[in-house]
Amino acid sequence: MADKNVSTILTGLKVLDMTRVIAGPYCGMMLADMGAEVVKLEVPGRGDDSRYYPPFQKGESLLYQLFNRNKKSITINLKTEKGRAIFKEILPHFDILLENFRPGVMEKMGLGYKDLEKIHPGLIYGAVSGFGHTGPYSQLPGYDIIGQAVGGLMSTTGWPGGEPTRTGPAMADILSGLNLTIGILSAYIRRQQTGRGDKVDIALVDSVVSALDFLPQWYFTTGKVPERKGNMYDAAYPYDTFKAEDQTFVIACGNDKLFHIVLNVLGRTDLLDDPRFQTNESRLNHHDIIKQLIEEWASDKKADDIVRMLTDHGCPACVVFDIERIAHDPHIVGDRHMFVEVESPKIGTMHLTGSVFKFTNGHTGEYTAAPELGENTQEYLKNLLNYDDTKLKQLEKDHII
Amino acid sequence: MADKNVSTILTGLKVLDMTRVIAGPYCGMMLADMGAEVVKLEVPGRGDDSRYYPPFQKGESLLYQLFNRNKKSITINLKTEKGRAIFKEILPHFDILLENFRPGVMEKMGLGYKDLEKIHPGLIYGAVSGFGHTGPYSQLPGYDIIGQAVGGLMSTTGWPGGEPTRTGPAMADILSGLNLTIGILSAYIRRQQTGRGDKVDIALVDSVVSALDFLPQWYFTTGKVPERKGNMYDAAYPYDTFKAEDQTFVIACGNDKLFHIVLNVLGRTDLLDDPRFQTNESRLNHHDIIKQLIEEWASDKKADDIVRMLTDHGCPACVVFDIERIAHDPHIVGDRHMFVEVESPKIGTMHLTGSVFKFTNGHTGEYTAAPELGENTQEYLKNLLNYDDTKLKQLEKDHII
Repeated sequence: MADKNVSTILTGLKVLDMTRVIAGPYCGMMLADMGAEVVKLEVPGRGDDSRYYPPFQKGESLLYQLFNRNKKSITINLKTEKGRAIFKEILPHFDILLENFRPGVMEKMGLGYKDLEKIHPGLIYGAVSGFGHTGPYSQLPGYDIIGQAVGGLMSTTGWPGGEPTRTGPAMADILSGLNLTIGILSAYIRRQQTGRGDKVDIALVDSVVSALDFLPQWYFTTGKVPERKGNMYDAAYPYDTFKAEDQTFVIACGNDKLFHIVLNVLGRTDLLDDPRFQTNESRLNHHDIIKQLIEEWASDKKADDIVRMLTDHGCPACVVFDIERIAHDPHIVGDRHMFVEVESPKIGTMHLTGSVFKFTNGHTGEYTAAPELGENTQEYLKNLLNYDDTKLKQLEKDHII
Repeated sequence: MADKNVSTILTGLKVLDMTRVIAGPYCGMMLADMGAEVVKLEVPGRGDDSRYYPPFQKGESLLYQLFNRNKKSITINLKTEKGRAIFKEILPHFDILLENFRPGVMEKMGLGYKDLEKIHPGLIYGAVSGFGHTGPYSQLPGYDIIGQAVGGLMSTTGWPGGEPTRTGPAMADILSGLNLTIGILSAYIRRQQTGRGDKVDIALVDSVVSALDFLPQWYFTTGKVPERKGNMYDAAYPYDTFKAEDQTFVIACGNDKLFHIVLNVLGRTDLLDDPRFQTNESRLNHHDIIKQLIEEWASDKKADDIVRMLTDHGCPACVVFDIERIAHDPHIVGDRHMFVEVESPKIGTMHLTGSVFKFTNGHTGEYTAAPELGENTQEYLKNLLNYDDTKLKQLEKDHII
């Protein structure tokens, strides 16, 4: 269906995706959603660990389906010499290699970038790891929660007096997958001019640090260590959450004009000239008074009504959507197709999260389910390397594919 | 300096960046860090609102400096017919246009994608907005906190029984800037084959929904609405924060082998065969007992010592770094250069956040400070459009540039 945001923007790009679980597969997913041919390289017999991660539908992992839709799957056992030889034979048929092993693992197998660029000088080698391929912590294992903790996101998310807080979703992984995608696309653009490939080395921790926005600059300019401030943001006020009778709502008021709208809606135009609220800076200094003022007014009103009153007058406001509301929202699902139904012969109709990339001229198509483990091994070894059935049977028997 | 991660990967790419504040400028920043020529188009006299946002150093905004380093600045008043004519004259000299106006604003000025592709068929038009350029909510204003609230991040971040929680940094803006970058680089790759440009329409809300990881799939498979779970993650346990005597620490234990290490370090090998802890799933079901076990053991120990004991035995663990610790860390700063010193004639030495993109073959160079408002207007109008001094003086006098 034309409206489902699978595009042909990257048709022609060939990607060998050795990554597991989330960060790397999210990169491969975006490329596949945009039409690249993404071939997942998995361990024979077991495959990506995330094939066994919940949530399950008909016994199959929807986490795996989510991050691996639109891809192919081949299996090669890289712990065998023969397997590594096949890997080197097949690699030159791809533009891009993605891996998320601990730094040094590829080198130990003789498959590091320095080895591979000799047999494929145009290779774009995209690596994602917890701490990156250089530096004193490079050998430490990196999981999302460690990226969020060491990269500063947890120390700045949460409530005054409360615990450091990770985001519900695996944000360090997501940010790293996005950065990996940018890195390899940029290197691919460069290659089209020079013919030469490159390696890009993305770290979870770096990705989180880069996402800290202006918080480090507060530390550098004031010497004060940014703390957890709940839903406040040090650039404007009222730009926060507030409690209505039934639920929490958001006001995002970034300037004087919008604050005047807030006072009007509250029926408190008597405060228009109050020196405590004259500028954004003075409002930030008196944020507790403003919060109290708004919450007293809101205490006998429904959040949805409040949001309507504010937005009707032009002040940005919203309620906090839970996943159920998002999953049925006419804009998010109906128009933007951020959830899509994808058919799988084994699982039936799955609900996966859709692509963010809406192009005007990018032709669109259907999502396809993630592949069975090794579903495309024979096809690729036959088509790319001219292996015959006898050879393929022997490789299978020897547990190499 | 060669180690500071400014590269020449995208040298040759020409970007006209009309975006303001964070989401769009973060995209332009990444492109400029990788060597693209990024020219910021600002309003004469005032410029990007974020020039007036804290934190300040010598009266100048470091938020502006952070997201606009390595760029140029030109000013054109698009509210005048003459200004719009100059815009149309200069546009074909650029590959990419970035804008983050409310949907429809560019069209009202006669500068929508449909207008611009007529005069520049190869144009890559990158738009970022709160809700996107289509759908019933497209006219609602989008700020980061609204993206986080409507996109589901706030409802799934925070503590059981507590309030929905936004991340400290403006994560919806950051995610959107990353997606915008991926969209325009992909369209650029496509253009190199077809000669034809494209428009990519990125929404804050879409970007947050796409970053929800597997949480929506839990809803779709179980019908249960994902709630705030503090630092737990529904894929593994113990994968959480714990309190030591002095501060919070993280254990990221994703499988049975690592859990055996945890029990060994705790001196509780008597629990190795306890059926409550045999599988990851049973550990998730008994997470409260495991948390209590670990925190009782940790209550008289320092977090740094605990982390050393665990990591020495091969179990991923860390403390939660605050911004001060990150700012002086030998790996994050010393090796990965995630904070860099940038010189500005007006401000002196600034500490900005460095680029995540570490290439092997990408030549590296120095960061340069963000431009003064309109610093490069005359240079660009002279070089690209052959305007002479008389004409430029008149345009200045008429407040058009």
